[in-house]
Amino acid sequence: MRHSSFLRALRGEAVWTPPTWLMRQAGRYLPEYRAVRANAGDFLTMCYTPELAAEVTLQPIRRYALDAAIVFADILLIPHALGVSLRFAEGEGPKLDPIRDAAGLARLTDASSAAAKLTPIYETLSLVRAKLPPQVALIGFAGAPWTVATYIVEGGGSSDQAAAKLWAYRDPAGFAQLIDVLTDATILYLENQIEAGADALQIFESWASGLPEPMFERLCIRPAARIVAAVKARHPHIPIIGFPRGSGVLAVRYAAETGIDAMSLDPSQPIGWMRAQLKRPIALQGNLDPLALVAGGEALAAGVREILTAAKGSPFVFNLGHGIIPQTDPEHVQTLVDLVRGG
Amino acid sequence: MRHSSFLRALRGEAVWTPPTWLMRQAGRYLPEYRAVRANAGDFLTMCYTPELAAEVTLQPIRRYALDAAIVFADILLIPHALGVSLRFAEGEGPKLDPIRDAAGLARLTDASSAAAKLTPIYETLSLVRAKLPPQVALIGFAGAPWTVATYIVEGGGSSDQAAAKLWAYRDPAGFAQLIDVLTDATILYLENQIEAGADALQIFESWASGLPEPMFERLCIRPAARIVAAVKARHPHIPIIGFPRGSGVLAVRYAAETGIDAMSLDPSQPIGWMRAQLKRPIALQGNLDPLALVAGGEALAAGVREILTAAKGSPFVFNLGHGIIPQTDPEHVQTLVDLVRGG
Repeated sequence: MRHSSFLRALRGEAVWTPPTWLMRQAGRYLPEYRAVRANAGDFLTMCYTPELAAEVTLQPIRRYALDAAIVFADILLIPHALGVSLRFAEGEGPKLDPIRDAAGLARLTDASSAAAKLTPIYETLSLVRAKLPPQVALIGFAGAPWTVATYIVEGGGSSDQAAAKLWAYRDPAGFAQLIDVLTDATILYLENQIEAGADALQIFESWASGLPEPMFERLCIRPAARIVAAVKARHPHIPIIGFPRGSGVLAVRYAAETGIDAMSLDPSQPIGWMRAQLKRPIALQGNLDPLALVAGGEALAAGVREILTAAKGSPFVFNLGHGIIPQTDPEHVQTLVDLVRGG
Repeated sequence: MRHSSFLRALRGEAVWTPPTWLMRQAGRYLPEYRAVRANAGDFLTMCYTPELAAEVTLQPIRRYALDAAIVFADILLIPHALGVSLRFAEGEGPKLDPIRDAAGLARLTDASSAAAKLTPIYETLSLVRAKLPPQVALIGFAGAPWTVATYIVEGGGSSDQAAAKLWAYRDPAGFAQLIDVLTDATILYLENQIEAGADALQIFESWASGLPEPMFERLCIRPAARIVAAVKARHPHIPIIGFPRGSGVLAVRYAAETGIDAMSLDPSQPIGWMRAQLKRPIALQGNLDPLALVAGGEALAAGVREILTAAKGSPFVFNLGHGIIPQTDPEHVQTLVDLVRGG
């Protein structure tokens, strides 16, 4: 088993100073990323070209003393592999050919075919693992079924996930079929990522906000629990981080009922409060406001300080509460890493 | 004092069946609203013409057995009265001439001049009160300073309030000045609404999501506490409802520290959980998902049932967890009212 402070924290050890990585650490805020992106031309080409994806995965590791790399990929590769057309329009976000009702599900391929199509991502993981320093862990990831479904039903991003929620309200059985096929494909995809070299996994439930508790239970907790149980049946020692962003108080149930080893918090979920609410002792991760990192200066210093104070003495991984914003100054990331090491 | 089940619930009485009103009950989902709107031409003209605003305020009261009317107005009338140019572009939402830094604050007039400019809204309240059945309460309202500030700084709506947060991080003292003038103006505006006939008030903190706890305390809790204390010093018997939408777990502090009489919950804040967390016994309001009202049928029935079950035996006002969505079928609102009365 890899000697990694990050993995030790995920397994429940109060490692101090806390291991650190940052969501979207491989991204547009880095000039070397933008250079690769400009040559590749297209975002999906980057995801599907292992040499390019491996290169951008490694870029932040070369710059900063981070404890984990996360494979460069996208949560929408699963619907793409299932047969949903996908393109990334410059400056507009993803565009999918939407599926709006149960009849549209016939357009989807089966879960194992989808997982098999994602071979380039597994190759990226192997390439990265071969080049990473041994003490740096490699994280594989997937979008959670509800979050991925919101993109499929809306045909892109949305602020309120109205189309997906309406389908779920009007035709719970049909919508459950969509969630089920996404769950099946995600399990295979994550297992393959482990076999290709992932040391840990993160499940991104990026659109967990605004869901009533019964819907959150049915569409977020249950699918995550099924993914975790299936993956752990074959790979019991691979820690799994859940990130139910915007889930507010419902995160307490997510932590208790999904079987995850660690939970990533968004900036509005106080670490001390969440720790006090945990019904079983899991690691926490987070949760600096990405805008405090953009701001830098005293806002950044105070934000890091508050998190370190709240987390000290518990199993914890320092991270943001959401992905790095493209306009972030790379120097601020260096400052963040220094502040955490100094704390 | 008005004999009103709504006001009794806000004062802590477990009235059953629960009194009911719906955020944005006067709005585009009603054909009679769209008719007035089409004649008025402009949204702001409607707000500033007491006869029109009173008419649309009363429309839902004529259709449905609701326990409260809420004056037809907009949370952006305060910045408009403070001198920020404002227009509502059709289908695009509000557009303001943004203030992005402390230097821009010089463009704002003082709080008492602003409150004085909003005379048409006070006239609307008086007109509505004269026409309302006596047992129907009249609610006055304002946007909370942070929420209003996000529109002023962004120049409109935004999904992440990035510009306002960045200013708050980079120049806390300058941003505090903006919050202060908004707080001062809001206090005067709400007092005038009471004097014109409002029986209760609601403070809409529509963009409370995603704020780290120290920022939520400084920018949401403290200004709300100052508003409540000032209004209650002159009008101790007027109940005040706070609505920190998206505040997740931080709502517990909001309820404890602002002095509000009641808190409106969003759909993701479970009623039973929140009641158990309350440090002082206040009424709760909410929190049906507006999309369950759009969906109707079993989704609506189940949503109402779950809320009634959770709220029974406590001081409670039935409402949505956010405003009525324009595409809502008015028949579904009738069904909702019947379901609550039957529960």
